[in-house]
Amino acid sequence: MSGNTEPGPMGSYITGGEAYERDTQYIEDRIVADPEAVRALPAPPPSKIGAVGYGLTPGAQAWPVEPGRYRLVAAAACPWANRTLIVRRLLGLEDVLSLGRPGPVHDARSWTFDLDPDGRDPVLGSERLQEHYFTRFPGYPRGITVPAIVDVPSGAVVTNDYPQITLDLSTQWREFHRDGAPDLLLGDGFAQMRPVVERVFTEVNNGVYRCGFAGSQEAYDAAYARLWEALDWLEERLATQRFLMGGTISEADVRLFTTLVRFDPVYHGHFKTNRNRLTEMPHLWAYARELFQTPGFGDTVDFVQIKRHYYETHTDINPTRIVPAGPDLAGWLEPHGRERLGGEPFGDGTPPPPVRAEERIAPGHSPLIAG
Amino acid sequence: MSGNTEPGPMGSYITGGEAYERDTQYIEDRIVADPEAVRALPAPPPSKIGAVGYGLTPGAQAWPVEPGRYRLVAAAACPWANRTLIVRRLLGLEDVLSLGRPGPVHDARSWTFDLDPDGRDPVLGSERLQEHYFTRFPGYPRGITVPAIVDVPSGAVVTNDYPQITLDLSTQWREFHRDGAPDLLLGDGFAQMRPVVERVFTEVNNGVYRCGFAGSQEAYDAAYARLWEALDWLEERLATQRFLMGGTISEADVRLFTTLVRFDPVYHGHFKTNRNRLTEMPHLWAYARELFQTPGFGDTVDFVQIKRHYYETHTDINPTRIVPAGPDLAGWLEPHGRERLGGEPFGDGTPPPPVRAEERIAPGHSPLIAG
Repeated sequence: MSGNTEPGPMGSYITGGEAYERDTQYIEDRIVADPEAVRALPAPPPSKIGAVGYGLTPGAQAWPVEPGRYRLVAAAACPWANRTLIVRRLLGLEDVLSLGRPGPVHDARSWTFDLDPDGRDPVLGSERLQEHYFTRFPGYPRGITVPAIVDVPSGAVVTNDYPQITLDLSTQWREFHRDGAPDLLLGDGFAQMRPVVERVFTEVNNGVYRCGFAGSQEAYDAAYARLWEALDWLEERLATQRFLMGGTISEADVRLFTTLVRFDPVYHGHFKTNRNRLTEMPHLWAYARELFQTPGFGDTVDFVQIKRHYYETHTDINPTRIVPAGPDLAGWLEPHGRERLGGEPFGDGTPPPPVRAEERIAPGHSPLIAG
Repeated sequence: MSGNTEPGPMGSYITGGEAYERDTQYIEDRIVADPEAVRALPAPPPSKIGAVGYGLTPGAQAWPVEPGRYRLVAAAACPWANRTLIVRRLLGLEDVLSLGRPGPVHDARSWTFDLDPDGRDPVLGSERLQEHYFTRFPGYPRGITVPAIVDVPSGAVVTNDYPQITLDLSTQWREFHRDGAPDLLLGDGFAQMRPVVERVFTEVNNGVYRCGFAGSQEAYDAAYARLWEALDWLEERLATQRFLMGGTISEADVRLFTTLVRFDPVYHGHFKTNRNRLTEMPHLWAYARELFQTPGFGDTVDFVQIKRHYYETHTDINPTRIVPAGPDLAGWLEPHGRERLGGEPFGDGTPPPPVRAEERIAPGHSPLIAG
């Protein structure tokens, strides 16, 4: 969704006075196991974090789950896309939902497949994600964002509603989950974790952007105070429990992790969220390290693409486009010691197998993979 | 000397290709105990760190040391000016060399006395340091820099040759040093510490600017590698000795300290020197903390002015001019444990008395002074 984080011809973010506000208009179609049944359910309440157990928002369509039909387009750089990379891995959906990977640095027309041979996605055949938005809606006026799911036969974007996508991967694609896939919603749908996920979204996932894109010192100072209040809350919460919702990894952890892993390499300096580094918050840092070392999390993280994306794309706050060489990332591999808190990271399930060769991040782009 | 760190009508820095090079042309007059004797000495070899035991550079003049005649103009924000604030305090020269203090944020015409009543220096009567450069040299074409020493009767700048100023305070103003003033040159003039001071200057004091003002990714990457090689050398050196030259504080420590104290608040994010924070380098950090807690060092450090100077002045690298609220500075007051390395910080001398009331930094501008 990082297409939504900077001004541009796509109107990709909205400024409300001097304080940053995220554009929350998306293509809210859904891919579901039983379209008829979903159409019969009541529309969800307004939400910026998605919903479980509801039907379609007015005007949206239901598409059927079908193995091999759709392509997930997700740039490794983007924290919102990174959620889908992790959930797809944890649930073992690689064989049924293929992956298109835009490069880290997009231009005013947004994400391109510049890392692929001849600069074209090998399945979609396109150079730009924009083409698939235009196939769906000619002249589509909003942000060309990732993650997006494209219907391969028609080439049209089905949805870019990132908070809903991961929830639907958990609930609607269940027939195709791997053996041992964890229940990322912990058995009760989304109910128990909803307040936590909501606070993490408004205060942390979005809170770092609120700092970085503040239009005045006053807006920044307020955003900084608000962010750190939430990080202090998380630090305290994670002092006594291994994961956000208890002893087992959940959707809530996925959503917090993608912000934490970008914190020191990007947000600390580029977005000025610099009261402390993540490495100075002992519980949050050990928690983030454990997730990083858990199959399905760290193996989706490409630090080189992450840094390039933010520092080269946001020329309004980094006009030189120079990408910092730091920080030293070796600490991500240090022992985390969180086993002492008990719990079962995958509940009754098992960790996913190693990343398939064609989806591995490049050597040297992570402390997990020697350069 | 921070006037020399950005492009402007004063030609305040020189770019050599894409790599940053500091302008090293200064007004090289000196204030000395015996002008006749100094004029008779041989000219110093070319140096960017100053010299002891030599005469004047060609064309420069010798002015007599005279209590009350000169005014040191030194912005707390500037690391090069900060050196003079520390040495003046350590040597106890407050009664004989008065202090003018420009505010942290200068415009294209450089430093102003905007913190003083009616925006005028109370002794010089001027609004801008530039006036005193122009009194000396009408249309002075180079950088209007601090520190500068002004001859109060004529209003003319005598010298802005910052590497020489502190050496002359130690060697030429000796008659007016306080009782118990330390010998910051450790008894042998400048000989023993010269290689250390030179490496600290080129690799660290200037090395952080080389990172921040790099004009290309390649120039930045080279500057970053060079800086961290030097910081690793210092970390190792300070593992086994309490100060840079041994068990006693010297001029070399003053010169390193003013860069270290700015490292996490400014250079780490703003100049992208972010392999590690200073707080992650255990020996350097304990060393810097000890100096900070030593009278004459930390009590000259105004973190608010420091941050405002860099983040508001360098609009080419921080166009929003937003000043980060972090980092948390409380750690500067934590015990440093360096006593175990032995030594006598002030040698045969004593620490300076507390800062006089009119020169204290503002409440809340330092962890030393509650806000």
